[in-house]
Amino acid sequence: MNTQASHPSGLDPASVPFDLSIDNVVFGFDGEQLQVLLIRQGLPGEDMRSDRFHMAVPGDLISPEEGLDEAAHRILSNLTSLKGIFLKQFQAFGAPDRVFDEKDREWLTRFRPYPERRVVTIGYYSLVSMEEYRPMPSSFASRAEWCPLQQIPQLAFDHNAIIEAGLKQLREDVVHHNIIFELLPEKFTLGQLQRLHEIILGKELDKRNFRKNVKKMENVVALDEKQEGVLHKPAQLYTYRRTV
Amino acid sequence: MNTQASHPSGLDPASVPFDLSIDNVVFGFDGEQLQVLLIRQGLPGEDMRSDRFHMAVPGDLISPEEGLDEAAHRILSNLTSLKGIFLKQFQAFGAPDRVFDEKDREWLTRFRPYPERRVVTIGYYSLVSMEEYRPMPSSFASRAEWCPLQQIPQLAFDHNAIIEAGLKQLREDVVHHNIIFELLPEKFTLGQLQRLHEIILGKELDKRNFRKNVKKMENVVALDEKQEGVLHKPAQLYTYRRTV
Repeated sequence: MNTQASHPSGLDPASVPFDLSIDNVVFGFDGEQLQVLLIRQGLPGEDMRSDRFHMAVPGDLISPEEGLDEAAHRILSNLTSLKGIFLKQFQAFGAPDRVFDEKDREWLTRFRPYPERRVVTIGYYSLVSMEEYRPMPSSFASRAEWCPLQQIPQLAFDHNAIIEAGLKQLREDVVHHNIIFELLPEKFTLGQLQRLHEIILGKELDKRNFRKNVKKMENVVALDEKQEGVLHKPAQLYTYRRTV
Repeated sequence: MNTQASHPSGLDPASVPFDLSIDNVVFGFDGEQLQVLLIRQGLPGEDMRSDRFHMAVPGDLISPEEGLDEAAHRILSNLTSLKGIFLKQFQAFGAPDRVFDEKDREWLTRFRPYPERRVVTIGYYSLVSMEEYRPMPSSFASRAEWCPLQQIPQLAFDHNAIIEAGLKQLREDVVHHNIIFELLPEKFTLGQLQRLHEIILGKELDKRNFRKNVKKMENVVALDEKQEGVLHKPAQLYTYRRTV
């Protein structure tokens, strides 16, 4: 019996190679609104202002020997120089035609050895404090910049839908995990913390209840410091102590 | 310029084909405990009691033209005859060595055309009422049977870890989505509903608060019927009306 033919589904995977990639939706918070990190795809030496290709979230193919989380960290660091930040896998995207839109042909032909291949991508989202992490473009990213969630243009492939899905997951995750603090600088005010919750959850919260709930969180610690350089009455600063 | 060499990462994806699969963690509820649907891998005509291969959750390779959700439904239906049930993608599993354990070599060599290939799998979970859905093994599943969560043996590949991760996701999802009703028969008692919540969340709930919260759910409707054939005092039956 020939083992090559023994798979009951009759599939011959040799004839249907998939490319596998990672795409990272990096959310940042500037104190007022949520932003997403986008890259402009290009090569070093190309006109930095070239808008020949669509912007995209930072992503690339997975290497043969690396795990998924490992690939996500490497790719984000390669393209944006961001290292050691919070990254969470949230969803795989695999519509058979997801990279075959006409708008993406030139990029694919130029940057991928096998542009005719179906690509399944695994979406990760990241949260960073925009004050503390400054992205720097590298590798095939000619630019890396923040874009407010409300102003995202048409992106490469299905990246608009990937951002939407990442935001939906973030909304659910903030309820169960203390990840929201990743978006804040080391010292923050309760006003900033409440505003960030409101932006992510998409609804206003009652200030008194919110503060009562925060008081119950052992990891949120009041500092003996106030805001500086603000025009209004300076608010007390807090910090989040990670439990080991 | 040769486009074959132009990918800045230097990767040649042709030399690193991935196989892509789906694995389905099907949770069932028997009124008392959560169970998981397992298959015994084998071929028709083989001794049905053969324990030559480990049991596994129902999974298989994705076909070239199908989307991920579509593949999940086809594979589950192929192996267990379960159709039209709730399925939700929850996580991709891609440790580079996840199929290369010695315990899995014989199965891989027998059932996969390219047993040396790395396989990334996308995990889905399903919820079914055990009263209403009866799995029937087919294709390369010689058996399909329910196994209580507490008694799951060592499974093929990393399937024990996949079940764990599916359960973790289910715990978070019941808080946001009315998916728990997928696990119940069409008519159920509030006692069953509470017990199911307690099992999934892993904690006891206060009966009075629980009933007060259920009363607020417009979709949970009291029927003009009571349990039949029980030894204790028959409880009132409820149903869940899906909103369109």
